[in-house]
Amino acid sequence: MHDLIIIGGGPAALSAAVYALGKHLNVLVIYENLGGKAGTQQHLRGQSGAGATPIVEAVRVLEREIASQPERALCDRVTSVSTIEGGFQITTEHHGVYSSMAVIVATGTTPHMLDIPGARELLGQGLGYSATTHAHLVAGKQVAVIGTTARALRGAAELVRTAARVYLIAPDTAGLDAPLAHTLQLRPNLEVLAGYHVKAVNGPFNVESVVVERGDEHRWLRVEAAFVDLGLVPNSGIVRQLVRLDPAGFICVDERNATTLVGLFAAGDVTTGFGEQVLIAIGDGARAALSAYDYLLARMPES
Amino acid sequence: MHDLIIIGGGPAALSAAVYALGKHLNVLVIYENLGGKAGTQQHLRGQSGAGATPIVEAVRVLEREIASQPERALCDRVTSVSTIEGGFQITTEHHGVYSSMAVIVATGTTPHMLDIPGARELLGQGLGYSATTHAHLVAGKQVAVIGTTARALRGAAELVRTAARVYLIAPDTAGLDAPLAHTLQLRPNLEVLAGYHVKAVNGPFNVESVVVERGDEHRWLRVEAAFVDLGLVPNSGIVRQLVRLDPAGFICVDERNATTLVGLFAAGDVTTGFGEQVLIAIGDGARAALSAYDYLLARMPES
Repeated sequence: MHDLIIIGGGPAALSAAVYALGKHLNVLVIYENLGGKAGTQQHLRGQSGAGATPIVEAVRVLEREIASQPERALCDRVTSVSTIEGGFQITTEHHGVYSSMAVIVATGTTPHMLDIPGARELLGQGLGYSATTHAHLVAGKQVAVIGTTARALRGAAELVRTAARVYLIAPDTAGLDAPLAHTLQLRPNLEVLAGYHVKAVNGPFNVESVVVERGDEHRWLRVEAAFVDLGLVPNSGIVRQLVRLDPAGFICVDERNATTLVGLFAAGDVTTGFGEQVLIAIGDGARAALSAYDYLLARMPES
Repeated sequence: MHDLIIIGGGPAALSAAVYALGKHLNVLVIYENLGGKAGTQQHLRGQSGAGATPIVEAVRVLEREIASQPERALCDRVTSVSTIEGGFQITTEHHGVYSSMAVIVATGTTPHMLDIPGARELLGQGLGYSATTHAHLVAGKQVAVIGTTARALRGAAELVRTAARVYLIAPDTAGLDAPLAHTLQLRPNLEVLAGYHVKAVNGPFNVESVVVERGDEHRWLRVEAAFVDLGLVPNSGIVRQLVRLDPAGFICVDERNATTLVGLFAAGDVTTGFGEQVLIAIGDGARAALSAYDYLLARMPES
């Protein structure tokens, strides 16, 4: 039986693993993709990636540490987590069953994808899922932000400084109550389209326009880029039956990253914690590992 | 006026600075020591530093980013923080006064030092302030842990696996109620000295014994190493008049690292957050910077 199994390969999982390795725990990391969102940056034409560099580099440092201990890492998909005497049983798709005394779930989120004509074809061709960090690419252009999450508003606030015009398309108008949304509406080059839904993104080769609709009303917006942020869907299915989730499916954790099930911890974007940022996830993973370590120490009198 | 001034040079401050630089904020970092505790590891004879490497390396990545923009960093001591119209005024010892719309305090902690004969002379010669990460050096030896903080107990739990004998000296017996303390008391090679205070650490060249006292009772303990963890004193004096502190002087922050004063954020060990770990501090700094960024965005309609 392992001391600790960490599920996930993003910054939170990597950071938890580095902490656990430093403590000489018998740890196993089961991941589908190493690097997580830090390894799968959204790309737009001309993106320099400037600004993200030291953060990505910090993740690479952690990644190398795990990669240097291949017996501690398993590339597979976890299909279920269940409780057994003295711990947990983790079932994988291709490598059978593993067990551990403690578990850290750091499986991240999946962006809520736009499912309309053109959305798949134009992904990366002017259509992206991360408005922030792209502000420098839209100088003098007309762009659309689709969604009113905190990230969407932050993105709109960055884009509006350089873009000629920003359309903030708000299918769900509740997000427009945020202080930042009120500030944005004062900007002369930003137009809020409250209650509109996006029906199509038009190319052919790069985004040239989006079509929005509210009831019987249609509008055709000429834009050169569209940034979708309709929220993140937590990858929490494997522990849905075991721990408390919030209404959106995020795993509820306390200030020490403990879930409602003793011995099961969670870290990073899959949790209810604030802030989907790589460095925040790194801290969160380390805190979960420290908590798991304290839990293991108190249960191992004769180890 | 700067957008943001970050006070501190440890992992939390560096991480906040990297996030702010990525957002092209007009940021200034005022620090006394770059690298913080990650740069000033405790040393004992024979310490290899193994295990800490990738974490220290991650901090170096952040440090290099700040060092590459010298106009963004100022080596000085902040003597006071006060509120002014539209923000804050930061007074430094040698470089005068700076102002900013938002502030992040990441000034860390100072260990509560042992102030007894031998404590200064034998620092680094068997006497240290970090029991964890030294477990591999004490195999087969007799050692003392002084204090019952969570870190002290964690350190004792690691030392007891390899040491011949561990004396857990508990001047403050309240910490002995923790679950880990109960587990530790079951170990045959650990002795708890409840209510004893350390009166002297004896050398001459390396630690050879410690003298403890409870009332009229004295004991002389032969040990080759002593690890002190009597708690950490937060470096929160500069904002003592401005924000709410907890009874021990740590800055109270919410889940977004906001203090009780609007526009003033705090991160890392100086706050009430859980876990004095470098990676946790990195996450905390990034979260504080994200919160400060949101605050600035909502206040800058025409920037």
